[in-house]
Amino acid sequence: MSSKNQEFDLSGTEALKAVFRNHASGIAIITALDSEGNPIGFTASSVTSLGSNPPLVSFNIAQGSSSYPFIGKGAKVALHTLDATTLHLAQRLAGDRSERFDGSESKGPFGVPVFCECPAILIGEVRERFEVASNAVVVMDVLMATADEIPVAPLIYFQRGYHGIGERLADNS
Amino acid sequence: MSSKNQEFDLSGTEALKAVFRNHASGIAIITALDSEGNPIGFTASSVTSLGSNPPLVSFNIAQGSSSYPFIGKGAKVALHTLDATTLHLAQRLAGDRSERFDGSESKGPFGVPVFCECPAILIGEVRERFEVASNAVVVMDVLMATADEIPVAPLIYFQRGYHGIGERLADNS
Repeated sequence: MSSKNQEFDLSGTEALKAVFRNHASGIAIITALDSEGNPIGFTASSVTSLGSNPPLVSFNIAQGSSSYPFIGKGAKVALHTLDATTLHLAQRLAGDRSERFDGSESKGPFGVPVFCECPAILIGEVRERFEVASNAVVVMDVLMATADEIPVAPLIYFQRGYHGIGERLADNS
Repeated sequence: MSSKNQEFDLSGTEALKAVFRNHASGIAIITALDSEGNPIGFTASSVTSLGSNPPLVSFNIAQGSSSYPFIGKGAKVALHTLDATTLHLAQRLAGDRSERFDGSESKGPFGVPVFCECPAILIGEVRERFEVASNAVVVMDVLMATADEIPVAPLIYFQRGYHGIGERLADNS
């Protein structure tokens, strides 16, 4: 038995960090338009499905984020999945705000900026946004999508770095 | 340029599924007590951090889930991260409800059932629960945690199966 048995000796932020050092997440990039029609976007490790009937997606965002004012109810948003060949987009949209868009993006549905080289792109409309402390959970209705027919190896975030997927250990029977 | 360029030909549930076939997620198990003090639990692929100040965690749950009535505001909940050696717990807590607990669990803080063999265990208290269509987003305050000192390779869910982590491709600079 591990020495940690019954010793819950971490609290607060330290507890959160210790647990999430052991947890991996998928990584995606999210784009939209600001009030002047300029592209905005960021890298997100919190994208999840929130049920398929109706099809809903959620992700988290800090209320202090520069993108926050433009991801309100009704906003059209593009969510891009990533792989090893689009890792640079995860890095770029997590970096300096002025360098996130270099003209390599296209105009997608509703004029939303899209990076066509990504394995899959989902277009959604923000349905609700729940504010919690200094962050928020954004819930989107799924409007449409495009995806490569053969899924690729997804990009994964773990221990402050980007990873590929490992060995398949078991099917979900 | 991929043939998918600008052709957003998928809609609704089909669109959701096509995109999430390309997206990986971390996998965790969540446990609590029912109103009679019996252990309940389920496997979750939607666990994310929702900010560190205050430390918050979110996950999604179907309102029709048998666990739903016991994951309301104020409930004490244990969130366990998983690795290859605890894969069987992901499978068991995704399976038949009557076979999810076999006595191998311990009583953790607040009497919540915990599986000490997991790499990290976080104890939280449900702060808010946002209902959206037939699902809900649960937000927990982080109370305490225990974790192995050296993080292990996390368990990842992708394409209806459990995977290990792959090659580290880049640091998040």
